[in-house]
Amino acid sequence: MAEKPWDGRFAIPTDKSVERFTSSIAIDSRMFREDIQGSIAHSRMLASVGILSDAEADAIEKGLREIETEIEAGRFAYDDSLEDIHMHIETALTEKIGDAARKLHTARSRNDQVALDIRLWLRRETLEILDGLRRLRSVLVDLAEAHLHVPMPGYTHTQRAQPVLFSHHMMAYYEMFTRDARRFEDALTRINVMPLGAAALAGTPHPIDRELVRRLLDFPEMAANSMDAVADRDFIAEFLSAASISMVHFSRISEELILWSTSEFAFIQLSDAFTTGSSIMPQKKNPDIPELVRGKTGRVLGHLVNILTLMKSLPMTYNRDMQEDKFPLFDGVDTLKDVLDIYIRMLPTMKVQEERLKKACETGFLNATDMADYLVERGLPFRKAHSVVGKAVAYALSRGKELQDLSLKELQEFSGLVEGDIFEALSVESMINRRRSAGGTATENVKAAIRNARTVL
Amino acid sequence: MAEKPWDGRFAIPTDKSVERFTSSIAIDSRMFREDIQGSIAHSRMLASVGILSDAEADAIEKGLREIETEIEAGRFAYDDSLEDIHMHIETALTEKIGDAARKLHTARSRNDQVALDIRLWLRRETLEILDGLRRLRSVLVDLAEAHLHVPMPGYTHTQRAQPVLFSHHMMAYYEMFTRDARRFEDALTRINVMPLGAAALAGTPHPIDRELVRRLLDFPEMAANSMDAVADRDFIAEFLSAASISMVHFSRISEELILWSTSEFAFIQLSDAFTTGSSIMPQKKNPDIPELVRGKTGRVLGHLVNILTLMKSLPMTYNRDMQEDKFPLFDGVDTLKDVLDIYIRMLPTMKVQEERLKKACETGFLNATDMADYLVERGLPFRKAHSVVGKAVAYALSRGKELQDLSLKELQEFSGLVEGDIFEALSVESMINRRRSAGGTATENVKAAIRNARTVL
Amino acid sequence: MAEKPWDGRFAIPTDKSVERFTSSIAIDSRMFREDIQGSIAHSRMLASVGILSDAEADAIEKGLREIETEIEAGRFAYDDSLEDIHMHIETALTEKIGDAARKLHTARSRNDQVALDIRLWLRRETLEILDGLRRLRSVLVDLAEAHLHVPMPGYTHTQRAQPVLFSHHMMAYYEMFTRDARRFEDALTRINVMPLGAAALAGTPHPIDRELVRRLLDFPEMAANSMDAVADRDFIAEFLSAASISMVHFSRISEELILWSTSEFAFIQLSDAFTTGSSIMPQKKNPDIPELVRGKTGRVLGHLVNILTLMKSLPMTYNRDMQEDKFPLFDGVDTLKDVLDIYIRMLPTMKVQEERLKKACETGFLNATDMADYLVERGLPFRKAHSVVGKAVAYALSRGKELQDLSLKELQEFSGLVEGDIFEALSVESMINRRRSAGGTATENVKAAIRNARTVL
Amino acid sequence: MAEKPWDGRFAIPTDKSVERFTSSIAIDSRMFREDIQGSIAHSRMLASVGILSDAEADAIEKGLREIETEIEAGRFAYDDSLEDIHMHIETALTEKIGDAARKLHTARSRNDQVALDIRLWLRRETLEILDGLRRLRSVLVDLAEAHLHVPMPGYTHTQRAQPVLFSHHMMAYYEMFTRDARRFEDALTRINVMPLGAAALAGTPHPIDRELVRRLLDFPEMAANSMDAVADRDFIAEFLSAASISMVHFSRISEELILWSTSEFAFIQLSDAFTTGSSIMPQKKNPDIPELVRGKTGRVLGHLVNILTLMKSLPMTYNRDMQEDKFPLFDGVDTLKDVLDIYIRMLPTMKVQEERLKKACETGFLNATDMADYLVERGLPFRKAHSVVGKAVAYALSRGKELQDLSLKELQEFSGLVEGDIFEALSVESMINRRRSAGGTATENVKAAIRNARTVL
Repeated sequence: MAEKPWDGRFAIPTDKSVERFTSSIAIDSRMFREDIQGSIAHSRMLASVGILSDAEADAIEKGLREIETEIEAGRFAYDDSLEDIHMHIETALTEKIGDAARKLHTARSRNDQVALDIRLWLRRETLEILDGLRRLRSVLVDLAEAHLHVPMPGYTHTQRAQPVLFSHHMMAYYEMFTRDARRFEDALTRINVMPLGAAALAGTPHPIDRELVRRLLDFPEMAANSMDAVADRDFIAEFLSAASISMVHFSRISEELILWSTSEFAFIQLSDAFTTGSSIMPQKKNPDIPELVRGKTGRVLGHLVNILTLMKSLPMTYNRDMQEDKFPLFDGVDTLKDVLDIYIRMLPTMKVQEERLKKACETGFLNATDMADYLVERGLPFRKAHSVVGKAVAYALSRGKELQDLSLKELQEFSGLVEGDIFEALSVESMINRRRSAGGTATENVKAAIRNARTVL
Repeated sequence: MAEKPWDGRFAIPTDKSVERFTSSIAIDSRMFREDIQGSIAHSRMLASVGILSDAEADAIEKGLREIETEIEAGRFAYDDSLEDIHMHIETALTEKIGDAARKLHTARSRNDQVALDIRLWLRRETLEILDGLRRLRSVLVDLAEAHLHVPMPGYTHTQRAQPVLFSHHMMAYYEMFTRDARRFEDALTRINVMPLGAAALAGTPHPIDRELVRRLLDFPEMAANSMDAVADRDFIAEFLSAASISMVHFSRISEELILWSTSEFAFIQLSDAFTTGSSIMPQKKNPDIPELVRGKTGRVLGHLVNILTLMKSLPMTYNRDMQEDKFPLFDGVDTLKDVLDIYIRMLPTMKVQEERLKKACETGFLNATDMADYLVERGLPFRKAHSVVGKAVAYALSRGKELQDLSLKELQEFSGLVEGDIFEALSVESMINRRRSAGGTATENVKAAIRNARTVL
Repeated sequence: MAEKPWDGRFAIPTDKSVERFTSSIAIDSRMFREDIQGSIAHSRMLASVGILSDAEADAIEKGLREIETEIEAGRFAYDDSLEDIHMHIETALTEKIGDAARKLHTARSRNDQVALDIRLWLRRETLEILDGLRRLRSVLVDLAEAHLHVPMPGYTHTQRAQPVLFSHHMMAYYEMFTRDARRFEDALTRINVMPLGAAALAGTPHPIDRELVRRLLDFPEMAANSMDAVADRDFIAEFLSAASISMVHFSRISEELILWSTSEFAFIQLSDAFTTGSSIMPQKKNPDIPELVRGKTGRVLGHLVNILTLMKSLPMTYNRDMQEDKFPLFDGVDTLKDVLDIYIRMLPTMKVQEERLKKACETGFLNATDMADYLVERGLPFRKAHSVVGKAVAYALSRGKELQDLSLKELQEFSGLVEGDIFEALSVESMINRRRSAGGTATENVKAAIRNARTVL
Repeated sequence: MAEKPWDGRFAIPTDKSVERFTSSIAIDSRMFREDIQGSIAHSRMLASVGILSDAEADAIEKGLREIETEIEAGRFAYDDSLEDIHMHIETALTEKIGDAARKLHTARSRNDQVALDIRLWLRRETLEILDGLRRLRSVLVDLAEAHLHVPMPGYTHTQRAQPVLFSHHMMAYYEMFTRDARRFEDALTRINVMPLGAAALAGTPHPIDRELVRRLLDFPEMAANSMDAVADRDFIAEFLSAASISMVHFSRISEELILWSTSEFAFIQLSDAFTTGSSIMPQKKNPDIPELVRGKTGRVLGHLVNILTLMKSLPMTYNRDMQEDKFPLFDGVDTLKDVLDIYIRMLPTMKVQEERLKKACETGFLNATDMADYLVERGLPFRKAHSVVGKAVAYALSRGKELQDLSLKELQEFSGLVEGDIFEALSVESMINRRRSAGGTATENVKAAIRNARTVL
């Protein structure tokens, strides 16, 4: 069993089961790079203020770099009795370079060290997620651009409502994932705060230079209150909240891909490369990717609930409960990155069934609103026009027809305002392209939205 | 039963139980002001583009203002068969002014109307919450300023660790609530987006001017995609997430107030005006306010889970499920505002037991770290100093003493580096004021933090 | 302001805002019947052990019955300064009958009183929910019985898989709601426990007879430990957990009804009486009820998260946080009961589009598994048969045909084991009725399941 | 890349990233024993109905046993392209014994196979948890028995209320964990249901004998509806709900152990073997185990939210989302078992500071209720007695005294009913032992509770 950093006053050795239970090495070892990066910055600062000699700082940096290489190469041994990645690295460093290593922990505590490591780690991951979101939005814009000629039914209540461009639909998701990016950027301003120098909780009497550490580690800001610095895990909750909202967006697009892949809708075909079959039903081609993604929504939401429940009612400052923050955070990050990656790969391979979509626009009375608008333009108050069209729809339904299949005479029986140009007004193309209000589905509007998106990306 | 806006094609009247089940009037009636405000802006815009005459727009505005007055005066009758606040107001307006009212719904749908109303409502409430947070932070800074002379034990693991200023502790909460304010401000940029003009989902063929509506309603931005405009409820989830994190902060300060009010800690006394007694135990003075606040954390977290689960897997665009968004939002807003208000009132009345706090700093070996630091400054590597002090603590414990109660000779047996100035180093005042690292607890640092906060507020 | 039951030692009166914040009367007044019922039982017991005279007990009962009548008639005034329903009733009783009322609280605390009231209330509600579930299951069995002749596609991954009876599908939901009932029955054994007599937390020195109170209030069991009796809210969490699982079932059937109501599926028609229209699209007939029900899933799950978060980390015994238990419980109960009621009304009015369902079974290769089974029965190992059929499906797909549309010769090219009886094996009726394994979809099995259900109900 | 069981109709091979994303082998490999156990039962049944020869069934069983040994010995290679544990074992079996292996999948689907495996696995784990709960309750009863002579303050609102026996407090937790056990037993009745024979979703035309499989696998019941059998994951949600409630109990006892370990309370000392120190503060002895346990509450609650959100709105029957059920379940089971184990080890080593506890009962006016009861017994109505004592408490407080420190004369000034025997009534021992109401804290009652518990255990 390794010597503990706090053995001094303890009479009875730690129970083996306790070491297993309290050890976090299986989880936090993935922050080894950040731990080393932070220790090098701390050591340089200690040298700059004279707590370490330059030679000691050099030895520390050299030793840490060697350890980094060993870990990367898989040549580093882990041991529950050393509790966490911080102790593992410190112990290995002491074996390598002796007393200088023991001085590295001056003016530092595991409390501010772990806060630093998580922030460094999450900063890097958040930037990768932002890059993933950028690529995903690019894919959506590509899809929009490639399908500008494809109308499809727009839905409310999963009922066909009015025709829209398939591209307009894709750009709705572009908007959602753009908001997600904004949220992660905002979260980043609170992740990107340098806690080191808080020591255990109260600051330190050593003449440290936090400003230097901040610059070395490229943080725009440093934590203003030492107690808050070690007690705060807001940035994890905020990150997981942004991730949960993003997963809700993924669940929505997944739901649509699943619906569109049914034989009832048959609006798209996912590539064979991104679907799987059934072990018992040879005809099946299952949308497994969207299903799994939809399922993972609960996973990330569960992690958000975990961190908020975990932090509830904890008194100041650090409490060991907070060691449990890494399980939801790490798995939340991994899940979101996996989901981003697979969607970026899958979406471009999806085949849009253009004919089915076009045809679908011609049934289900998607032009009812436009008939009402036609009447309004000719002077009927909206609520009355609505009622007139409702009756025309009921009439057509009873004859198994659509509005555009009725004769002019039949239509005129519902309102004397109807004239021959009604049929043009009821056509899919006209319906789409007349919706030129800002943000509407008219082709020119969607083209403009695509251009804007290209500029942003 | 009122006439439905969609009666036209329905053969069988709506079941009474359905009206009750689907009606949202009991909940959404509190948005009447926003509904009227939005309708007036819409009507002015319709007049500006020629869809309404100026006379019609004037009649609409006058009618809506009358309705607003009636609702405020409690003279407005609600009826489940009218479903929601939008239909109530429209119906009342039609009764008042006739056909012009029927034209008001041109180029608008309940889908974009309700999105607008919620955003207007939540914008106002968020601004009030930001004001509440500002006042709360002011109270915390006042407390910090008034207690600059009061040391107290700082805790990790709910164990006494190192002395800090009571003011430093208060300023830690100042930091948390400041972050909360930042989060609400960020959320506001996504709340503050104008959806009207999306109509049902696809935009409208009417020649509307969304830019004008945006200006009239003072939105910095308008929704860029009509489908997203009516399908999006991210801003509610983001708001409730910021609210949940803020409630976690309230749960933490509440936990501390509850602990500090125990006879074991006895660090503070809550005012009689803010505590309650027991119906059976005459001696009790219970910290009900902090307890209730702590309990309300789960309530807001539950609402966050609600909205995220609600939105999960909903296909584009509007689905009736989304009517359920208002229950968690409204109660979440009310809860947070009540909590803010009661804390702003209660905190200034709390009495800090200065003598108890000071005395508490002198027991529990809060100066152990400082003895280690003392040895480090005299050349001992940190890890060795830690071990030396651990043994001194064990020795003192076994004699029922504190470190400062040991004789110089006793102390010197643990390390030859100890000299007479050790006792100064182990005093509470010295411990606090030596922690001058940025963000540390030294009086001058805390004073600077207070000054900064005053500038911000 | 009313006199508080604990005014004795307080120098400063309660702040008005505190009264508002801490008062629970707006929520707990709905337990007035239970409060009165419990007080009458307590008073009879006090008389039986000689703490009250029979005359006093009679006066108390008479007074309480009058108060009950007043509350039911809406003639009872509420006031925040009286905090909760218990104090309201006690105060009113004191005004009516004087000193005897003051004795009623002997050997009782609000802690055990409120625990009793909630348990009495929830017991009644749970029994009503069990009755609702029984009626809902009855409706499902009716639907199953009425549609024994209707095949439909069974789905996995929302892809057509194998034909099943519509009745079999309904009976799957019967099973789910039956499990829900079992869970509520199990929860009831833990709800149905008598806490009174715990007093504040430690029991009472008065010679009370808890066994008598238990019998009077018809509880099978009484709480075995006084501290646990006032500190426990497990039964609420367990109830809300059972309710959440049940809501997940409702969300699943709702999702299916919504899908089946689309023009793409068109498997059912919900009655006009249970759908609503659109204010802008006259053709719409929206499945609002299933949508709202699906949306309410998050609401009940949110309440479950609330109660579990609320109880987390509370030390023994009663804490004021627990006052917040009623908000999620009451709304959870109301929501589930409303959902049960509307589904019991709506389901019988739904029209099943039998022809569409039958036809849907004939496309999408729902007989692929049966072709594989056909080959297995003739000796081919399953995995090989699967592969053979996979190729046949690909071949048919490429010709725009179904398996049953291929010629015998075409089929035989995939396997020499195919003979003329293959077409019988591939027919919908045969596929369904051959699945006679226990629990399978064959008509005779489903009939048996219906018979079993009738016996249970 | 391994051959897929469903390759037949697919033109493009599965993308490598898809294999990684969809593979569950990293998680579900731990169910290998259950998969093999289920396959052996299925194979014996197939032989008994003539689908397999006895020789084939023997070969299958022998092969599966070999594979089991290989996996246990760590000699089994995993590969993402084989998706899950079922395909791994089937593929290995085919390599070992050829065609017979291919027949094993007759009348079975991965849908019912995975449902079976999870149920077998969870049944075993639930029984282990029940055993853990039994041992934990035993430890609590031991603690209660060993401390029957130790009074302590009982708390409400974390304020000292009335004295109780430490043993009574322990027995409150005994009650909670007993209810947990009841809940797991109830959940077990719904876990312990045999799904095999549902095949993909509709049952199977093969003449299988589900009753035989049920007996072979020792299930009391089998799933009554094939669609429900493969679509149901209620039992996971119910398990995680029971686990969450149990974790709330652990969070409550943990909170108390943490409080009791503070220097302010100092009611207990956790053994050095079960605490850890600080890397920076040599005096610290931190209650890490209770802190980590408290923190893990959120983890299990998060998993519960995950599974409920995951299942929300899934249409019948199996959907790939459901593969995500194992992550929360497995980690939830592991967490609860770890927590049980560490508490069973830790609790017996805790040292109760009897003198501190006893002394704590003598301050804080814990006898105020008893003074009120004393007056009530002498004829004062309860509410008046309460008020009298409130004033006496205020008087004593103002003199820095406890009630028992006042002179008889002083006490009599508050009520003429006070006599010399008041001091006996106000003693700790008398207060505890007079609370003889059923479930109260009197020594004889607690002894009886311990005897009952011993009988149950």
